[in-house]
Amino acid sequence: MVVLGIDPGLATLGWGVIDAEAGRQRLLAYGCIQTTPEETLPMRLLRIQTEIGALLTRFQPEEIAFEELFFARNVTTALTVGAARGVSVAVCAAYTDRLFEYTPMQVKQAMVGYGKAEKRQIQAMVKLLLHMDAIARPDDAADALAIALTHAGTGVASSQFRMK
Amino acid sequence: MVVLGIDPGLATLGWGVIDAEAGRQRLLAYGCIQTTPEETLPMRLLRIQTEIGALLTRFQPEEIAFEELFFARNVTTALTVGAARGVSVAVCAAYTDRLFEYTPMQVKQAMVGYGKAEKRQIQAMVKLLLHMDAIARPDDAADALAIALTHAGTGVASSQFRMK
Repeated sequence: MVVLGIDPGLATLGWGVIDAEAGRQRLLAYGCIQTTPEETLPMRLLRIQTEIGALLTRFQPEEIAFEELFFARNVTTALTVGAARGVSVAVCAAYTDRLFEYTPMQVKQAMVGYGKAEKRQIQAMVKLLLHMDAIARPDDAADALAIALTHAGTGVASSQFRMK
Repeated sequence: MVVLGIDPGLATLGWGVIDAEAGRQRLLAYGCIQTTPEETLPMRLLRIQTEIGALLTRFQPEEIAFEELFFARNVTTALTVGAARGVSVAVCAAYTDRLFEYTPMQVKQAMVGYGKAEKRQIQAMVKLLLHMDAIARPDDAADALAIALTHAGTGVASSQFRMK
């Protein structure tokens, strides 16, 4: 089963695709969608919409896992991160209803068994589980892979993590 | 010139369409897109995406004006309002680059000449300018018409209010 993980953001949106079979996960691809403040907000959001759409066409994931956002540095940040996430979710919702979400703490718990683990512990585990030569860069792409792995390990077909 | 005004929100998104000629504005239609917490977030965002798309097809607006958001009650609200706004902006950006935005204060200033005017003063002015029999309901639809009127009066072809 192909799983797409998404770590949403306006400047950098991380994505990672894995193929998950019973207890074994294989890396397919990862990367990030980057936009800059030199572009207008409409252009940035449109590009996120288009590029996520291209990922769905290219990898045809059966399930999609998002990082769940419930806080942000401030309201201004929340408005723009919310916008990027909203656009991503809407594109994916037009494609499938198999959408799931995990809090950062759930990802940490699933990846290293400790909800307050450090970012580089997660990254090292992503590298290990997917037999990668190096830690995925940028961080957002590594985070997206961790979300996909979390889903593969805990969430597949579980309604508990279904996006509400 | 047909102008679409949008007052974004997740539970209620107000919209209003006017035909604006030199100094004269005509009401074409208004309404709102409502979603409920009984639906999943993906379904709510997808419906906003689809229904905004239907408005664009139906009215073929030449310019679109949004309410500019830069605050919210709290971060949680900002994330969901930001999501609804992001989805709306992305759909409109795929349709045209003639997108504009106005702060609530700019709308008040344009409509009644006073940036701290009350909501019902704005609503009364919308009714007057568009020769309506009653004040538009719900409030979000009236707000959307006020945004369209503000754009028709101040913003047409002005780069000052172009969405950045």
